[in-house]
Amino acid sequence: IYSSSLWKVVYKEFIVWLLLLIASTLLYYFVIKAPVLIVLSFVTNIVLTRWQSVYLQLLWPENVALTLKYFINEHMPDSKSILTVAQRYFLLCAALVFRDVNVQIRDNYFPTYESFIEKGLLTKEEKDIMFSTQLKPTACRYWFPLLWIIQLVKKRYNAKRGLLGTRKETLILEKHYCELVNAINDYRAGISDIMSYDFIPIPLALTQLFTFFIYSTLFLGIFSFQSRVFDSMQAPDASLPTVLSIQFISAAMFNLFFIGWLRIAHIILNPFGEDDNDFPMCELLEQYCDSLYQILCVPTDVPIYKKGDKPLV
Amino acid sequence: IYSSSLWKVVYKEFIVWLLLLIASTLLYYFVIKAPVLIVLSFVTNIVLTRWQSVYLQLLWPENVALTLKYFINEHMPDSKSILTVAQRYFLLCAALVFRDVNVQIRDNYFPTYESFIEKGLLTKEEKDIMFSTQLKPTACRYWFPLLWIIQLVKKRYNAKRGLLGTRKETLILEKHYCELVNAINDYRAGISDIMSYDFIPIPLALTQLFTFFIYSTLFLGIFSFQSRVFDSMQAPDASLPTVLSIQFISAAMFNLFFIGWLRIAHIILNPFGEDDNDFPMCELLEQYCDSLYQILCVPTDVPIYKKGDKPLV
Amino acid sequence: IYSSSLWKVVYKEFIVWLLLLIASTLLYYFVIKAPVLIVLSFVTNIVLTRWQSVYLQLLWPENVALTLKYFINEHMPDSKSILTVAQRYFLLCAALVFRDVNVQIRDNYFPTYESFIEKGLLTKEEKDIMFSTQLKPTACRYWFPLLWIIQLVKKRYNAKRGLLGTRKETLILEKHYCELVNAINDYRAGISDIMSYDFIPIPLALTQLFTFFIYSTLFLGIFSFQSRVFDSMQAPDASLPTVLSIQFISAAMFNLFFIGWLRIAHIILNPFGEDDNDFPMCELLEQYCDSLYQILCVPTDVPIYKKGDKPLV
Amino acid sequence: IYSSSLWKVVYKEFIVWLLLLIASTLLYYFVIKAPVLIVLSFVTNIVLTRWQSVYLQLLWPENVALTLKYFINEHMPDSKSILTVAQRYFLLCAALVFRDVNVQIRDNYFPTYESFIEKGLLTKEEKDIMFSTQLKPTACRYWFPLLWIIQLVKKRYNAKRGLLGTRKETLILEKHYCELVNAINDYRAGISDIMSYDFIPIPLALTQLFTFFIYSTLFLGIFSFQSRVFDSMQAPDASLPTVLSIQFISAAMFNLFFIGWLRIAHIILNPFGEDDNDFPMCELLEQYCDSLYQILCVPTDVPIYKKGDKPLV
Amino acid sequence: IYSSSLWKVVYKEFIVWLLLLIASTLLYYFVIKAPVLIVLSFVTNIVLTRWQSVYLQLLWPENVALTLKYFINEHMPDSKSILTVAQRYFLLCAALVFRDVNVQIRDNYFPTYESFIEKGLLTKEEKDIMFSTQLKPTACRYWFPLLWIIQLVKKRYNAKRGLLGTRKETLILEKHYCELVNAINDYRAGISDIMSYDFIPIPLALTQLFTFFIYSTLFLGIFSFQSRVFDSMQAPDASLPTVLSIQFISAAMFNLFFIGWLRIAHIILNPFGEDDNDFPMCELLEQYCDSLYQILCVPTDVPIYKKGDKPLV
Repeated sequence: IYSSSLWKVVYKEFIVWLLLLIASTLLYYFVIKAPVLIVLSFVTNIVLTRWQSVYLQLLWPENVALTLKYFINEHMPDSKSILTVAQRYFLLCAALVFRDVNVQIRDNYFPTYESFIEKGLLTKEEKDIMFSTQLKPTACRYWFPLLWIIQLVKKRYNAKRGLLGTRKETLILEKHYCELVNAINDYRAGISDIMSYDFIPIPLALTQLFTFFIYSTLFLGIFSFQSRVFDSMQAPDASLPTVLSIQFISAAMFNLFFIGWLRIAHIILNPFGEDDNDFPMCELLEQYCDSLYQILCVPTDVPIYKKGDKPLV
Repeated sequence: IYSSSLWKVVYKEFIVWLLLLIASTLLYYFVIKAPVLIVLSFVTNIVLTRWQSVYLQLLWPENVALTLKYFINEHMPDSKSILTVAQRYFLLCAALVFRDVNVQIRDNYFPTYESFIEKGLLTKEEKDIMFSTQLKPTACRYWFPLLWIIQLVKKRYNAKRGLLGTRKETLILEKHYCELVNAINDYRAGISDIMSYDFIPIPLALTQLFTFFIYSTLFLGIFSFQSRVFDSMQAPDASLPTVLSIQFISAAMFNLFFIGWLRIAHIILNPFGEDDNDFPMCELLEQYCDSLYQILCVPTDVPIYKKGDKPLV
Repeated sequence: IYSSSLWKVVYKEFIVWLLLLIASTLLYYFVIKAPVLIVLSFVTNIVLTRWQSVYLQLLWPENVALTLKYFINEHMPDSKSILTVAQRYFLLCAALVFRDVNVQIRDNYFPTYESFIEKGLLTKEEKDIMFSTQLKPTACRYWFPLLWIIQLVKKRYNAKRGLLGTRKETLILEKHYCELVNAINDYRAGISDIMSYDFIPIPLALTQLFTFFIYSTLFLGIFSFQSRVFDSMQAPDASLPTVLSIQFISAAMFNLFFIGWLRIAHIILNPFGEDDNDFPMCELLEQYCDSLYQILCVPTDVPIYKKGDKPLV
Repeated sequence: IYSSSLWKVVYKEFIVWLLLLIASTLLYYFVIKAPVLIVLSFVTNIVLTRWQSVYLQLLWPENVALTLKYFINEHMPDSKSILTVAQRYFLLCAALVFRDVNVQIRDNYFPTYESFIEKGLLTKEEKDIMFSTQLKPTACRYWFPLLWIIQLVKKRYNAKRGLLGTRKETLILEKHYCELVNAINDYRAGISDIMSYDFIPIPLALTQLFTFFIYSTLFLGIFSFQSRVFDSMQAPDASLPTVLSIQFISAAMFNLFFIGWLRIAHIILNPFGEDDNDFPMCELLEQYCDSLYQILCVPTDVPIYKKGDKPLV
Repeated sequence: IYSSSLWKVVYKEFIVWLLLLIASTLLYYFVIKAPVLIVLSFVTNIVLTRWQSVYLQLLWPENVALTLKYFINEHMPDSKSILTVAQRYFLLCAALVFRDVNVQIRDNYFPTYESFIEKGLLTKEEKDIMFSTQLKPTACRYWFPLLWIIQLVKKRYNAKRGLLGTRKETLILEKHYCELVNAINDYRAGISDIMSYDFIPIPLALTQLFTFFIYSTLFLGIFSFQSRVFDSMQAPDASLPTVLSIQFISAAMFNLFFIGWLRIAHIILNPFGEDDNDFPMCELLEQYCDSLYQILCVPTDVPIYKKGDKPLV
């Protein structure tokens, strides 16, 4: 009787204990996971939207350069010089922006404005003009090259405009000048949006709060996990190692997942950083140089087509 | 037999009590946390979207000023005066807007319209024009300076337009006048959107409701926490202090987190307030003054480029 | 022995009962709250998006009026009459739209089209033209005034166009006519979007379903709460009143919150209703009248600036 | 002693049983509800966004027709014929689109292209042109009428363009031709987007998956509900009927709600179907006919305004 | 007494065991389901947005081709040749893009640039021009055909422009050249966005993390399910098979659902893959060929309308 009674009691105890352990484990993960998931989704959504808008705005001077090329009258003697200078100015603008947003680019490539001169992106006269203004020495100067491109075109455009009979000899037509100004203004506004994310950094406060929250939640989770392990020790059981190892593996996996997600969110937050996944700025500069050269400085050979060409059907 | 029976009973009790305590603690956090998280995400999403649209619309008169500069014929004798006045008008418009949306700016810098005159942003005649209308004295007047800029240009533009042979002598061409009007209209519409957030403030009712909900939830949470502490007191136990201190720390942390989040949401809600994270309006005004001066009042020196310039490869 | 045994049993019972009561209470709130929160967030998101798009589209004839003013040649004799009539037509258009979307405006201000004539917004001849068409008597007629404005301008524009030497004498230039047509077409399309929300009201079916769901959930919640109270009555206990009063307060608070949220969602759903938070249409009409008068009918005095004006630094 | 012991045991059992029943009921609803709610919100969000974009793009040829009317020189002899034909072509385009997307329209109104001829929307010659191409017989042909409108205008426009002195005699000016082409191109692109939702139907795979998931979840829920009822039968109790009837009512209500929501999502998914809530296409065609007739074929009477008109104040 | 006591104990045990089993089952599903659902919704939302933006940008050269056709003066002798060549260039551009983004197309259709020549999409001279630049051999060359189209038009446009009296003889007017450049620039920018998703693939890191998380969660779920089955084995019971089979069916169904969802998300992630649901590129190329031929190479017959045509009423 006693032994069966003992068994009965132990059996009941064992099942209750086991089920409560499992339930509390699941609840524990759920309670940790759900808020962290909600917060992570929310943060990632914000930073991903921002990343995409930065990505779509900053890059790609090609379109502006193509607009310039398409509208310039290439029969004018000046046109070739202007396109050549414009290539340098577009590159200089990109380099100035990259220097402002990325510490690595600033330290390794362009520590001072002299280094632009050394690399041939800037002349001494141009640097003097950039610093002869009332602007503070630390203010952004990325928009000078864009201004110069417009001024170069406007100067020549002004000299001849209005002489209708000699339109062929103008550098650019008034309607086309308009489109060029709009294209460059849009490009400048896109860069300006990016630069001012630094100036008014409210979302940063938000993300710092979230980072703090997620790390401390995970930290408390570890603490709570160990206390559970400790409690379990006092009730040794055959199936304990199995249960604990499953718990340990899944806990490790979840923490890995959350840390990984948070890390990616941080990388996306500052797309101009030094991480592997950030924008590869040096390569971008080289690629700009290549494509701007191809667009602005190489006279495009148009293939000769034969009159008898038939359409593809 | 008795002692073992006693032990058995106490042991069972202890485990049940401990597990139920933990489970109820976790449930408690979860029940408090999940709705607050959902509500906070929702509110933050709304206010952040709004903040960004305000941010992208209000700021940056630079683009409009650049449009004006690019399209004005700088060979005309009037052009320099007009650009100089335009700088003042753009600043005046920004100051009028800032005064309307920010109490601090109004009280400290521009208590009355006289103070604009004192700071040189407005002349006496201009103020008389602004108040000689049928508009109510308290109505917005930020759009007067923008109207004046257009009228100044249109007046001169009208006088000469249509004389095709003398295009060189017009202040602005008809196509370019068009673009200028569009740019200034868009700028005005952006400001108008911001001003009318005050006029029809439905989302405010929503956010007040949310604030009330979150605070009262947290308040109830504190109350409920204390009653749980009190209950636990009646069953003194060795591990109680540990459990309670963990509970206390995590409760404090979560409340800190939620209050912090709510606080940031409130700061973002009114980006024109006096908080540390709000738009730094005084600095913005100074910065506008600098950049508008640079754009409109300084004749841009275009660097002289040499004919033999080679493209960068 | 017996007394201690009794105590032991009662003690155990009491704790289990109390904890289960708390757990079930929390679960209850959570089960009621979570779906209601999700559904409410979803509905509010939809209606808020819609509200904002209505808000951004309907209001503000100012921009169209400014476009008209900027592009009309004010030296032409007709120009003043046209601007004066345009003010009336813009107001008439807004009044027709408000009458169609808001029952209160229709009943109190404009029960029939005669009332527009009484208030001076419409002449008898104009009303005859509006009703001499094949359109059904109940069809929208808000676009007639906009059509008339364009036709008034086009008539004069046609008569003189093409005579390049006398451009100064045209009412409007061809390029500027283009911009005016675009501005008025956009304005009309915005109004048309709003009007057709009534014509194809699918989202209403959705929101009715949601409203029904939320109300019945809350109703069931009350029922379930009372049955819980009743059950608790059968096990009288010292701490019962405290527990119940906390439960009652928090239940009342949550229900208040949900009802409030739903109410705001309904107000936002129809921004043209009679609620306190809806668009104040009568004030809007008066405000339109003021600002359109100021823009279109008052000749703008441009302040005289002195040649020696210095830029602000 | 025995009786009190019996009571004690039964009492404990009863409470535990009742509370566990309630808890499991609530948990059951929550477990069924939460994922279904998340999935339904997600699906509805997708289809509602799509519905709105379809709605905003497809409908409303009025704006294009207005653009045509505003820019056509109505003094030209051809203009009236062209506007009359354009009305038919716009209607034909809408009818072709509606026939392609809606089975009901195809079967009841336009089973073959001959039926367009019968209703006077198409002539025999036009049908021959539409089918004399290399396009497959089943390919879309909705863009032919739009192409014809442009070609009709371009033909006349080409014949006279460039003769500056006779601008008055051109059907349309070059700038205005541009705007017309843009308006019709945008209209065509909008229709093209809608047509290609059928061509590349990935989101359908997603929604089928979701539908399957929701139905099978609800089905399992019914099964699980009945097994719970069956289990409860074995422990008859006074309060059982009450509990069960509450459960039954709330289960029925929730299922009704979910089914209703899913049904609405399906209706929204295909806005061109035959449901009560879909776009009323026949009425739309009639309405288009009326408004296009009014816009294109009725010469607009401009009301005569008196010189002495006073502005409204 | 003993038997009734035994029954009592067994009965209690049985109910507790059954309810705990059900509760843990439900909890289990919920704990597995909720995070997976949140993560899947989040991922699908991201990839679906991306898919739609790709879909709206890549496809449809028809609009650009229509713009070209509408603005070209078809009375010029060159115009027919240019339109014929443009058809080939648009196709070539699409084929180059498809080759870059889809491995299957590259391997099966266009393994080298020679294969373009074989299919008649490219001539030998054109290939030489494409490879005589400083660009790396592996760089994208899809924009050459678009550049050539503009250059072909610009060449002829330049030669005659400005001679106002002979406008009829220009290939394209300056305003219309502008619109053409804008249309082609927008088309190029859309393709450029797509190509650069490969260049800066941060969201991929995110989706890899999510895939790993979902698979391992489901894997752990299976493991945990089996251990539960094993535990239940030790307490054989009549209703066990029923409970287990329900659990098995619903577990299988959920896993199927999640795997299906994840699979669709992966298909959507790379819309250029080889899956059944991806864009059918070969058919798209053929369809482009047909519609571009129809638009650019077939002279549009405008139907002859009769003067006496009456409007439809």
